[in-house]
Amino acid sequence: MPKRATIKDVARLAEVSVTTVSLILNHKGDRFSKETISHVRTAQESLGYVPDYFAQGMTIKATKTLGVLVPDITNPFFSQFSQGIEEVASRAGFIPLIYNVGTQDTQSTNYLQELVRRTVDGFIIAAPNVGLDIIHQYLDQNKVPYLLMDQSASDNGDRIIAGDFEGGQKATQYLLDHHHRKVAVILPRQHSNNIDKRLKGYQKAMINAGITVDSDWLIEHELTKKGGYEAAAEVIESGVSAVFAINDEMAIGLYRGLQERGKRVPEDISVIGYDNIEWCQYVQPQLTTIEQPIIELGRVATGLLLNRLKTPDAKPQTIKMATKLVERASVIDYQEVE
Amino acid sequence: MPKRATIKDVARLAEVSVTTVSLILNHKGDRFSKETISHVRTAQESLGYVPDYFAQGMTIKATKTLGVLVPDITNPFFSQFSQGIEEVASRAGFIPLIYNVGTQDTQSTNYLQELVRRTVDGFIIAAPNVGLDIIHQYLDQNKVPYLLMDQSASDNGDRIIAGDFEGGQKATQYLLDHHHRKVAVILPRQHSNNIDKRLKGYQKAMINAGITVDSDWLIEHELTKKGGYEAAAEVIESGVSAVFAINDEMAIGLYRGLQERGKRVPEDISVIGYDNIEWCQYVQPQLTTIEQPIIELGRVATGLLLNRLKTPDAKPQTIKMATKLVERASVIDYQEVE
Repeated sequence: MPKRATIKDVARLAEVSVTTVSLILNHKGDRFSKETISHVRTAQESLGYVPDYFAQGMTIKATKTLGVLVPDITNPFFSQFSQGIEEVASRAGFIPLIYNVGTQDTQSTNYLQELVRRTVDGFIIAAPNVGLDIIHQYLDQNKVPYLLMDQSASDNGDRIIAGDFEGGQKATQYLLDHHHRKVAVILPRQHSNNIDKRLKGYQKAMINAGITVDSDWLIEHELTKKGGYEAAAEVIESGVSAVFAINDEMAIGLYRGLQERGKRVPEDISVIGYDNIEWCQYVQPQLTTIEQPIIELGRVATGLLLNRLKTPDAKPQTIKMATKLVERASVIDYQEVE
Repeated sequence: MPKRATIKDVARLAEVSVTTVSLILNHKGDRFSKETISHVRTAQESLGYVPDYFAQGMTIKATKTLGVLVPDITNPFFSQFSQGIEEVASRAGFIPLIYNVGTQDTQSTNYLQELVRRTVDGFIIAAPNVGLDIIHQYLDQNKVPYLLMDQSASDNGDRIIAGDFEGGQKATQYLLDHHHRKVAVILPRQHSNNIDKRLKGYQKAMINAGITVDSDWLIEHELTKKGGYEAAAEVIESGVSAVFAINDEMAIGLYRGLQERGKRVPEDISVIGYDNIEWCQYVQPQLTTIEQPIIELGRVATGLLLNRLKTPDAKPQTIKMATKLVERASVIDYQEVE
């Protein structure tokens, strides 16, 4: 076991008792002189002494970490989201620790158990594949607060409504407004709550326009650049003139697949994405998309969680975030093929 | 304070003593019947009871987390790096927790102290701005093992040499082999050890080719897509025909700046990057670059750290990783301007 500096070492160096050190380091040192306090703190710093919670029992629980569970840290959405969390968390003295859940279910139980055990104070669960049963067992039962995103919770927790239905509708409507009628959507087959709402928004816009959605227009591939890339063949085969990619990563992957097959965006096929990750501006043509206020989402999620930590019995809050169309260069009017 | 299920609750539900529960949950329950063990575990699960380390003192220290400090989680390099860490860590029963240090120094002390306090077992420090003094104070003094990347450690720790000098030289030589002579490098002014070695590799290649590096060819901007984007004006003004971008993010940012100013890559200006992040294949033209085996780096770093945890007194290890030129479409032969 690693040998760390102990409270006894600090006491010895500062020439005071262990109790004195303990009281001073626990901010209960009012009774001591400024000089004594200074000696103790200097001794602590020079030894690099860090209180070992296990040894000192229940005296302090410095409750200052937030567990952030994300499904895919390589998706820029989640790294930007984490930035927003970090901003608010650090101002409140909390350290956000990011755990990449990935897409497998098997890891879930283990890490959640381990993190709760280490008394992480609260969780932002942005990974849709962390099961509600597990959340219930380890978090609800132990009264550990969490902010659940991208899932329907069965209970009344704090919620952020990210506007996915309207967003999906807005994206599709934008294509329809450009006179496209054969409009495909590319998305993952197994998909989260938020993505399902975007799909429903697409369907609503199509229904409203009196267009029957062809089954060939629902093109399913994984929620990554690679997935979008692989969707290109089917997109071309379907004969659509425009595509709503369910997130920007898929849109950008699709770009590559289309370009490799000699199809130009937007001249041959218009593409609209969703999220407005930074990369939208660094591809050609710059990607038209529906903006989610990603960093703001991170801030708001953290704010809700911190409030819940402070007042556990407060009424559940729901915050609605707005999406916004960001017009760039990847969508043009439908052109008849000459 | 949140009310969690206690060991007493488990004991009550399983109809055994607290000591019995404690022994069984600490894997010291050999003396008990299968039936008793089963009752206790069932009671634990149904209550979602998680042992509170603070309350139970020194009995178990389940030492299974690794702290991973990265400078910028939005750089795909670090998210891919984390994937490699996760692979090896999870197989060994460790949970990697990512902390995004960002570029500010002020946060460093706080979080390192907090993480050590929570007995994170070891650290992979890939953030070059975490000062050696802080590392010494909180980690060395407390004998917490760590794997330091992208810094020269003053002591003999385990090391990964990522081949940056040869990589920078290789990148530059590739441009020179394409008959470019006026070759710029874009990089951040404040730069880490690894980046400095890449710069020196560039300088060596230029010296070997008998070319005097013009001061206008060292173009300094932040190590991000935005930095590369902002470098475009100076790149064009410098009159160079080729650019070595110190990482792919900068290269891709540069692309956008050049394209917005009517310069084509590679026809007007050739560009080579560094890292081989996934995005290289999703931009136009696909980016020629020097590949770092990013995910492998994550795996190797974790392997070294885990070994160090197992055998703290083993000799320091140095592992050298190779870089590789990945030819794509962003570099062509120097053309005289007509």
